Amino acid sequence: MKRIVLAKRPEGPPSDENFRLEEVDLPEPGEGEILVKVSHMSLDPYMRGRMDDVKSYAAPVPVGGTMEAGAVGTVLKSNDPKFAEGDTAFGMFGWADHGITKAKMCRKVDPDAAPVSTSLGVLGMPGFTAWAGMTAYSDMKPGETLVVGAATGPVGSMVGQLAKQAGCRVVGVAGGSDKCKMAVETFGFDACIDHRAHGSAAEMREALAAECPDGIDIYFENVGGPTLGGVLPLMNLNGRIIICGMIAWYSGAQDDTAAMPLQRFWRMMLVNRLQVFGLLQTDHVARFGEFLKEVAPKVASGEIKYVEDVAEGLENAPSAFMSMLKGGNRGKQVVKIG
Amino acid sequence: MKRIVLAKRPEGPPSDENFRLEEVDLPEPGEGEILVKVSHMSLDPYMRGRMDDVKSYAAPVPVGGTMEAGAVGTVLKSNDPKFAEGDTAFGMFGWADHGITKAKMCRKVDPDAAPVSTSLGVLGMPGFTAWAGMTAYSDMKPGETLVVGAATGPVGSMVGQLAKQAGCRVVGVAGGSDKCKMAVETFGFDACIDHRAHGSAAEMREALAAECPDGIDIYFENVGGPTLGGVLPLMNLNGRIIICGMIAWYSGAQDDTAAMPLQRFWRMMLVNRLQVFGLLQTDHVARFGEFLKEVAPKVASGEIKYVEDVAEGLENAPSAFMSMLKGGNRGKQVVKIG
Repeated sequence: MKRIVLAKRPEGPPSDENFRLEEVDLPEPGEGEILVKVSHMSLDPYMRGRMDDVKSYAAPVPVGGTMEAGAVGTVLKSNDPKFAEGDTAFGMFGWADHGITKAKMCRKVDPDAAPVSTSLGVLGMPGFTAWAGMTAYSDMKPGETLVVGAATGPVGSMVGQLAKQAGCRVVGVAGGSDKCKMAVETFGFDACIDHRAHGSAAEMREALAAECPDGIDIYFENVGGPTLGGVLPLMNLNGRIIICGMIAWYSGAQDDTAAMPLQRFWRMMLVNRLQVFGLLQTDHVARFGEFLKEVAPKVASGEIKYVEDVAEGLENAPSAFMSMLKGGNRGKQVVKIG
Repeated sequence: MKRIVLAKRPEGPPSDENFRLEEVDLPEPGEGEILVKVSHMSLDPYMRGRMDDVKSYAAPVPVGGTMEAGAVGTVLKSNDPKFAEGDTAFGMFGWADHGITKAKMCRKVDPDAAPVSTSLGVLGMPGFTAWAGMTAYSDMKPGETLVVGAATGPVGSMVGQLAKQAGCRVVGVAGGSDKCKMAVETFGFDACIDHRAHGSAAEMREALAAECPDGIDIYFENVGGPTLGGVLPLMNLNGRIIICGMIAWYSGAQDDTAAMPLQRFWRMMLVNRLQVFGLLQTDHVARFGEFLKEVAPKVASGEIKYVEDVAEGLENAPSAFMSMLKGGNRGKQVVKIG
């Protein structure tokens, strides 16, 4: 089997030297395990965090260890009654063309309901993250204004579509006019601001103010950086901020917003009685079935749209990942393997 | 009538020159207004914020204007059916020995149910603030650990007693061994840490860690400063922070915690999936009746304790206020006027 391991820890943005492709013998699945031939693997911003040796919500990938990833594929061998040979399974198989893991840690995927790659995006972890955060914390009401960064990514595009369906005004932030067009034309956002054309918090604030004449009630945070800096002064009384990620800061970038003194933020919290929620989808996983039941039919009917950016071949995963961290992807980044 | 006006805006901690005692003719109450002879006036930390000319949740007191305060007294004259002469009324009468205001902006107080001064503290705005914040946002559960600063003040002491009654471990932070003793012996806290003996965030963290062996689930924020700095690294997964005030920072004090970069805090929010709520009691005022119904009998029975620190005479309000901002009061600071 082929796999990609963490060759060394990055300082700042990752580069080729941080990854190494290896070929190893295919192990035998043990008791309760399944062996899967991977067809599609997911690339997500959180993986950048796992490359650093710091405390987070999950342990870092060890140097020399296989990079983590959710992936989907066909069961070749099963030592557990949950799966039969030929079933389609989603699991944390890593950056690899085959995976072995405990059957109970995997999810069965119906390959006839939707393309199996959707189990990595709109009907997988990113889509669920958006749905879980919005249903648990947003308290969204018709007529409110929501802002979301990384608007055409699998989390941002779901957040925006859910808010639109709830009657909100939805303003996205994305990198490049191409993505902004996609946010409006494909995902139905009311507007989308190009952060590359508004590089400072002050410029972003001005652009947001123009598109959010009634202020911002809900900010779904995927990015940090100057986007956050532009959003904060526009937050309305009793506004809600859901912190899902901060991709602009993952590789240690510094900006005025990163350095904003906590005292100033504390004052904003009190003056506007904001509510801020840290979101991790694993805390909500008991509701995954409810999510699929509600969202899968809307994906099938086209009421909820998704866009996938598919790289070909495991060996191209590092470059696709590095590009994604710089915003090079259009929609959910997937690697087609099998 | 006598009143105290804002003579000039303070820079840093207020001093005598910021206040001026004036004598003016007693005005006549207009249509829908009442004239009240004040017996007790409240002093609260939020008044420091009103002395600055900055955007907040309420307009600043203008220079030359009467300092704001809630107060309670006897109705001398009423031009509204809501009050009869001789009734007891609570209203925003300011730092003054008489007050005139719209009857509909005032609350009728039952002088036989409890001493009228309690309408300024345990059964007034501070007690309600604590109750509203805890019932709306704390999600407190038996066995959880709560930390609250300004532990013997009217907000902190109510927060701690409510959490104790809900089965939480309650650790206070207060200034001086005297207050710490009061928190434990009078208000039933499990422990109370003297912030004067632990002046840095690192020292406070160490002291808190010793008293909170299972970490901190709920932090009720009254103070900011090194107490907050000590609390943050001890917050548990899914911990809640309710921001009610930040007295350590009201006069512009600087410390490491005030300067903590937002990026670092954002990361804490995500790693521990914290929830942070800005609290202002006016947002919850529709529940004031529910509060009185629940809490007043417990105050009457002694199940909920309160302590008042009574200064004598309007002319002593400024010195009592300045002392309170430095933590010189023991319990709820009141000025007896009439």
